[in-house]
Order: sequence, then structure tokens, then C-alpha cells
Amino acid sequence: MSERITIALDAMGGDNAPRSVLRGATIAKRRYPELDFLIFGDEERLAPMMKRMIRVRRSSMIVHTPDVVASDEKAATALRSGRNSSMRKAIDAVRNGEAAGVVSAGNTGALMAMAKVVLKTVPGIDRPAMASFFPTLRGETAMLDLGANIECSADNLVQFAMMGEMFARTVLGSLRPTVGLLNVGSEEVKGHEELREAHAILKEGGLAYSGFVEGDDIAAGTVDVVVADGFSGNVALKSAEGTAKLVNEFVRQTFKSSLLAAIGYLFARRALIKLRARVDPRRYNGATFLGLNGIVVKCHGGSDALGFATGVGVARDMIRNGFIDKMAAEFHGPAAAGADRRREPAEPEPDAVIGLGARAVSSS
Amino acid sequence: MSERITIALDAMGGDNAPRSVLRGATIAKRRYPELDFLIFGDEERLAPMMKRMIRVRRSSMIVHTPDVVASDEKAATALRSGRNSSMRKAIDAVRNGEAAGVVSAGNTGALMAMAKVVLKTVPGIDRPAMASFFPTLRGETAMLDLGANIECSADNLVQFAMMGEMFARTVLGSLRPTVGLLNVGSEEVKGHEELREAHAILKEGGLAYSGFVEGDDIAAGTVDVVVADGFSGNVALKSAEGTAKLVNEFVRQTFKSSLLAAIGYLFARRALIKLRARVDPRRYNGATFLGLNGIVVKCHGGSDALGFATGVGVARDMIRNGFIDKMAAEFHGPAAAGADRRREPAEPEPDAVIGLGARAVSSS
Repeated sequence: MSERITIALDAMGGDNAPRSVLRGATIAKRRYPELDFLIFGDEERLAPMMKRMIRVRRSSMIVHTPDVVASDEKAATALRSGRNSSMRKAIDAVRNGEAAGVVSAGNTGALMAMAKVVLKTVPGIDRPAMASFFPTLRGETAMLDLGANIECSADNLVQFAMMGEMFARTVLGSLRPTVGLLNVGSEEVKGHEELREAHAILKEGGLAYSGFVEGDDIAAGTVDVVVADGFSGNVALKSAEGTAKLVNEFVRQTFKSSLLAAIGYLFARRALIKLRARVDPRRYNGATFLGLNGIVVKCHGGSDALGFATGVGVARDMIRNGFIDKMAAEFHGPAAAGADRRREPAEPEPDAVIGLGARAVSSS
Repeated sequence: MSERITIALDAMGGDNAPRSVLRGATIAKRRYPELDFLIFGDEERLAPMMKRMIRVRRSSMIVHTPDVVASDEKAATALRSGRNSSMRKAIDAVRNGEAAGVVSAGNTGALMAMAKVVLKTVPGIDRPAMASFFPTLRGETAMLDLGANIECSADNLVQFAMMGEMFARTVLGSLRPTVGLLNVGSEEVKGHEELREAHAILKEGGLAYSGFVEGDDIAAGTVDVVVADGFSGNVALKSAEGTAKLVNEFVRQTFKSSLLAAIGYLFARRALIKLRARVDPRRYNGATFLGLNGIVVKCHGGSDALGFATGVGVARDMIRNGFIDKMAAEFHGPAAAGADRRREPAEPEPDAVIGLGARAVSSS
């Protein structure tokens, strides 16, 4: 029998909360019986809904929280006045060791800000990043940062590369994941200064670094991990999502365009349903905040139960595979006191940080 | 009968040149009988190939050029030593008035550098941008910059917005195109400093400015023109291309996955072929360099004849619609002597630049 895992759920975050959260927990519980939940939210609303959710009720505890972080609330406001919110209390539970991870479909900025303040970054990491994985021609590829850091230094990018590599090992099960830096051309002369600097550092390091990749390499699965600043990563992610939606819509219209096509649909229906499941964005729901002393998974604001369950599954995989302990063990550089403080270069340690040496965890 | 139009073709640029160029010219000539071509390249190779291309031969002239710009040549090298290349001579023909536009599938950086030096930017434009258009849920959307300018100032972005709007009016036929700025969130606080500055300027201006848009708005067709710096624009474009390829491949695999699906394919075949044509990237081949005193269209390096013909079609549309004259008329600000020179703010002119006033053509 596998060890029990407790996950904190922000029951009030997301467009379809709390129903989608509770139903998502039901689905996740069916998939992973070892899960227990601490459910943070308005007890008066949650308790009646959970009455008939026997599976979840048996292994969950509702923790009443009076406040909710609004989806349009500024991160700073949420930090200041959201101390009794479901989101904050769920994160607190991770810090206090009551839960091994937290899942929320609420306000991204607020979640990131609270998680940073409450859980702190792992020593050696200046800034946490948002990571997720996507279907590709060759399997699945992880990408980060997806929007947490609009501007990034070369050091940030190098740290993202290391965290992403660890994420691919832990969640995707790649043994030695390859890593690429997102750029606009593969020639070394191209791209921003920070990119070229990160490229130079990664080339010397111990990761399976494949050099620069371009936007079309993401879906091609050229590398296992695509590293980008939060702006480009977010643009790439959303452009891809938009295009997938567009092509799906074109396919749908195609089968409605003639009687023969409609008949064809009937024959191919079963295969087409499988196709839909294959590209279902809900299978790829759940961006993870990497670099914190705790597992934090952010589901899409519009998540339904299935999407939320996927997010819970990502948290569960990371917990089961001891992601946080691995990260702490591999990043044992000097503590990062602040995101922007530039530290003095340390003497390279022979066994430091996946062979990247001190360069990876100090400014060069 | 429509007026004759002469277009200069760089016959030696691109992976499949010169054959793809000559065949592309044949297709374009069939579509647009008013076209004549000046074909620049190695006469010894071109002449035998053209023997059987009667349609093109009749309305073309080969201009022998001894040199070719290699696809991996640096722009600076090409500028210095490529004076007798097919690419350079084709651009020269536009400056000399022998051709109304030039089409090349060659080295993008070299083409941009040569075009800038030979044709110069339109007064009021600091930097040319690469633009193209894409299929969306609502029709077609233009996007720029696609990679010519890695870093952009707020002024650059504002100028791109104006050029893109003009491009959408001229090539897509939108009467009053809506314009959006690519960002990672629609809240005004997000994004780079330059983006927020450009946003503030555009809000005050006379364009149908819709504010910030995100990556998924491109394929959704939320606006007619998406404005981005060259880095994000290129990432968005290539991520979208990669995703379209991925979904197409998944669809292909779906119809091979079972006998029933294969039978379904037979029924829906005609509709599916139409679908393929609808998303065929060759229909959207040809990025245009906007902001120059001349029409320059860059086809994808891997263009086949059909792709090259599309590029010729874009050049032809812009020429027929008097794009350059319109641009010169609408941008009548002070001449930009250099891309990086910051000019003194001019007194706003009441009728300046589509109502954006002097702010759009001077640094603020």
C-alpha cells in the first residue's frame, strides 16, 4: 500500500469554484486512492455540496476560511489583506507541514506572491518560475517560465534550465532530459544579451543542453525542456493554445461541410473522440511553481473538474517523487536573500549543482 | 485591361531555388496575367530551365548575376561583398524603378540589411518590420514584427501599429482594422515598460486600438492587426506553426488508427482535402518588409513553387493598391536619418499621421 499524501485545496479559486474543485478532488481520489485533502473555503457552501461526495468526504477535512481572493485582485492587495483567504490558508498548510502541496485555480499573481512570501525560494534559486508540459510529436515537453517573470537575467534562465530539467526527470520520467533555450534563430549571434549569456553558461555546464531552439521546436518535441523568459514563454504557450483551438474548430467545420463528410465522421467517430482526448487541454492543465520550498500547482482559472483533477495529479506526482527534497539536494548554493541581489561569485565546488559549478548559482 | 506590373525575382534564394522560383513565377503569372518578371540569377542555370516555361519566358527577362548570398551568410558580409548577387541586383532594380517590387526566398537578415541600405526607410519610420497574415477563427489577421527587430522602443511599436494597420487595409481589405498590442495579460500593469508606453500612446491616437491582446487572441482573430516586438512576434508565429503541424499530424494518425477511421476518411476525403488547403502554410507564405521605400517580400527559405507564388501575389496586391504611395502620404513626419537616432519632439501637426499627431513619429 502506498504512503498517504495530504494535499491542500483552495476550494474558492477559479471560475467554477467551489463545485469544480470538489468534483475534481473526487476524480483525483478515484485515480490516486492514497490522497487525503485539506479543503479550504466557505464551510457553509462546501458542506452541503460534499454531502453526496462520499469518497472525498471520507478522506477530507474542511477548514473554514472567511475570505476569498478575487480573480482580478492585485497581488500586493491579496498579500496584505488576504491572510484569512482560502488561498493563503491552503499555502500556510504546506509551510506548517499539514499538507505536502497545494492546488489552486485562483488568481495567478496572488498565488505566486503568497507562495513566495510564505514558502520562500529554495536556497540557490533567485526567482520561482511557472512550468508545465505539453504534447509534442515525440511525447511531452516541459516549458518554463510561463509568465511569472516578465524580464529575466542570464542567471534566472540558467536556474530555470536546471529546475526544468529536474521537473522533466521527476514528472515526465525522462532519464537525462535535453534542454533548449527559446530564441528566434539557432545562430549564436541572435537574441537578447541575457539569452546569449545564459547560452554560454549552459554550454559549459553539465546539463544535456541542446542550444537555442525556436517556437516550432516546442510542438516538434526537439528538446525535453524549453527554457524562456516569462514573457516569451507565455506568448508561446498561448499562441499554441489558440492555434490548437483554431485547427480543432476547422476540423469540426470540415465534418459539417457536406453529407459525405458527416458520414465519414460517423465511421471515424471513435478515433476522432480519441484524438480529442489526446489534444484535450485539460490533460495539460496545471502549471507548477518551481523553485519554492513546497509544491504549488496552479490550475487554469476556467478549469472544470477534470482540469482540476489533472492539476492535483501533477502535485501528487511531484510529491511522490520527492521533488522538493531532490531540488534542495541539487541546489545547495548560497541562499538567495532577494530576487535582485547580485551575489559575489563563489569558488566553484567540485560537486555543485548538476555539474554546472558555482556559475549556475552565482552571478558571473 | 489592368496595368502591367514588373516584379524583380531573386532566382537564387531559398532551399529549392532556382527551380521553385521559376515554377512559382509560372503559377503567379497564371493567376495574375498582368505580371512581368525581371529574373536575377545565374543565366546558365536559368535559361535551360525556362525553355519549356513558355508563359513565364514570354513576359520575363533574365538578368545575369554572378554571385549568390548564402543562406548562412551574415548580413554584414552579404552587404559588403554581395553587390553582384542576385538578391542585391533584384533590390537595386526596385530602387532604379525597373521593378515595382522584389520577391526573395533567400537569407532573411541579408535581404533586410540590403533592402534597408538600398531602399531606405520611409520618412517617419525608424525601423522596418516584417509583417504577414494568418488564418483565424474570424478571417485573417496581420501580425508584425515577425523577427526583424529583437528589441523595440515604444516609438517603434507605435510605428509598427500604424504600418500594420495600413497593411491590413491594403492587403486584407479591412476598412478600419482594429489593432492590438501583444502582451501577457490584458491588465494595464503588465508587460515591459516599452509596451506600456506604446499602449498609452496608442490609446490617445486615431487608430482603432483595442488595447493589449494575448497569444491566443492571434488565432482567435480578436483584432485585425497584432503588434509585437520582433522577438515575441517570431516566437508567437513559430509556436503557432509548430502547433498547427502537430495537430495536423495527430489528425493524420487518427485516420490510420483503425479500419473504421480509414473508411471514414474515404467518405470525408474531399472535405479533408479542403481543410488541408485551408490551413496550408503555403497560402500564408511571404512576409513583407514594411516601412521601406519599395515593396520587398520574403518567402520562407523552404518555399516550393506554390509558396513562392503566394509571395509574388502579396507583392502584386501591395503594388496594385499603391501601398508605398499611401504610406509615404500618411507618414509625412521628419525623415529618419538612422534607426537609433532619437529625434527632437516636433510640434504636433493637426493632420499628422492618422491622427496620432507628432508623438507617433518623434520620441516622447
